[in-house]
Amino acid sequence: MNILITGGAGFIGSHLCDRLIAEGNKITVVDNLILGKEENIQHLKDNSQFTFCNCDVLDGEAMKKIFNEGNFDMVYHLAANSDIQKGGTDPSVDYNLTFNTTFKLLGLMRDFNVKKLFFASTSAIFGEATGYIGEDYGPLRPVSNYGAGKLASEAFISAFSSTYGIQTWITRFPNVVGERFTHGVIFDFIKKLRKTPEELEVLGNGEQCKPYIYVKDLIDGIQYVITHTSERFNVFNLGPDSRTKVKEIAQMVIEEMGLNAKIRYTGGDRGWVGDVPEFKYNLDKIHQLGWQTPRTSNEAVRLAIQKGLGK
Amino acid sequence: MNILITGGAGFIGSHLCDRLIAEGNKITVVDNLILGKEENIQHLKDNSQFTFCNCDVLDGEAMKKIFNEGNFDMVYHLAANSDIQKGGTDPSVDYNLTFNTTFKLLGLMRDFNVKKLFFASTSAIFGEATGYIGEDYGPLRPVSNYGAGKLASEAFISAFSSTYGIQTWITRFPNVVGERFTHGVIFDFIKKLRKTPEELEVLGNGEQCKPYIYVKDLIDGIQYVITHTSERFNVFNLGPDSRTKVKEIAQMVIEEMGLNAKIRYTGGDRGWVGDVPEFKYNLDKIHQLGWQTPRTSNEAVRLAIQKGLGK
Repeated sequence: MNILITGGAGFIGSHLCDRLIAEGNKITVVDNLILGKEENIQHLKDNSQFTFCNCDVLDGEAMKKIFNEGNFDMVYHLAANSDIQKGGTDPSVDYNLTFNTTFKLLGLMRDFNVKKLFFASTSAIFGEATGYIGEDYGPLRPVSNYGAGKLASEAFISAFSSTYGIQTWITRFPNVVGERFTHGVIFDFIKKLRKTPEELEVLGNGEQCKPYIYVKDLIDGIQYVITHTSERFNVFNLGPDSRTKVKEIAQMVIEEMGLNAKIRYTGGDRGWVGDVPEFKYNLDKIHQLGWQTPRTSNEAVRLAIQKGLGK
Repeated sequence: MNILITGGAGFIGSHLCDRLIAEGNKITVVDNLILGKEENIQHLKDNSQFTFCNCDVLDGEAMKKIFNEGNFDMVYHLAANSDIQKGGTDPSVDYNLTFNTTFKLLGLMRDFNVKKLFFASTSAIFGEATGYIGEDYGPLRPVSNYGAGKLASEAFISAFSSTYGIQTWITRFPNVVGERFTHGVIFDFIKKLRKTPEELEVLGNGEQCKPYIYVKDLIDGIQYVITHTSERFNVFNLGPDSRTKVKEIAQMVIEEMGLNAKIRYTGGDRGWVGDVPEFKYNLDKIHQLGWQTPRTSNEAVRLAIQKGLGK
């Protein structure tokens, strides 16, 4: 297939490039390198099946040219803000980088008759939901602009899929960890401990408890869902059954770094405004499709720490 | 209270003005008169408690000035596209008039520290849901850009309410009918029959079945919900228990006009792409709060026909 990946130079996007190239597809990456990095895709640049465009999805003229020349069969839309805290301080970040990129891309797909879309969504659309959250859970009450930007995107994707006949796959990610990550709790802990090896400051009380998935397992799940479903509109929660507490992550990072640091908690049930302290998916739908992640949440976290330390 | 109403010169907005003025509030209306009409608020123009600004919510500089001078306690946000078919042809209509007006307004409320918001939402956010749909129903799968624009608005309202402490009331309207309406099935049927009194063309098979509420009853429900709830985030479905079929509306319009027109159905289960042929609310939540609409759906439709004919 001839595929456009937005955000393809980012943490998750670059792993997706690796996978789709390995499967024999022709790939065009659009990335403005705000969050993505050229080094993430450096190893693909000599591949004749790979094209990189340093371009913003919101640049209408440039994107028209790319669609005009690309003749795409499918779009994987991963370009988005991924920094929840930043979006809390400045709502325009999630509005532009997450929502507007989706809306503009949908318009281009309609205009250029591209009929297949993958969208990277998130558990954050559910807000502070408790219990095991299935795909059909309601109400959808995001507590962060990050979650709002993704839910607003899902809303217009649903309408475009129905109105203009775009076949769609949405998977909702949990916390994703592994090589090339640029933010998140493991990244922060390693950075902090490199600066002050004797003490680790943890935001909140450390009891925040969420599922973590290793990035290559996530990509495997995405591709499994896309190749095993054929509805016009397909939505799947994706992740491990298990979860990891922030205090466990802190302990694992200290262990893997061979340190004896003291942990200091800032207190409160969450790390920052917009943080969701606890979350778990109901994964029956993807399990019934025949896929589950090969690693537990703790295994994914430990592997990501080791990769983050260059082990 | 000192209140800003966006879309206050529109069909529903102008009835809200009447009610809020009658309750002793000071009102500022912002309306760009794309869908609203000055004649809808003409009778209020000499009232010292009423100010009209012919202005677009998307005009950032003008809105800043209005917020700066207004010292508002609360915003009622009704400005939106209301033409579902138009939004199907041109997705930028719902994106701009419905979603972007909400996002810009939220930013202004945050900047000017306005802490109370009412938002006019719709059953269209639920898409083609079947059964009795309660407030917490999921998934939310709009099939029109109109529904997507409202759901995307709800998403950012939820995040802003949580992140910046804005107390919020959302009511989800069914079909609303009555004086000053500018579109919709009754409006269309009257217009068609005035042109060709011997035959009425009905889009679809006439079996489309939805709840209709009389506009003044809707306003009463909105004000009841706002004055009887005190959570930070309040969402209510609003409407009658009963429903009316399009074929019944056709018959009632013909009767009230004293005609003997033949009805011709264009066929198919819906009127246009994005139309939801059937819908019913679960109204337990608003009933338990102590409110229900005084008219059945059929009574609301007949009253609206009579008002539409100037009876």
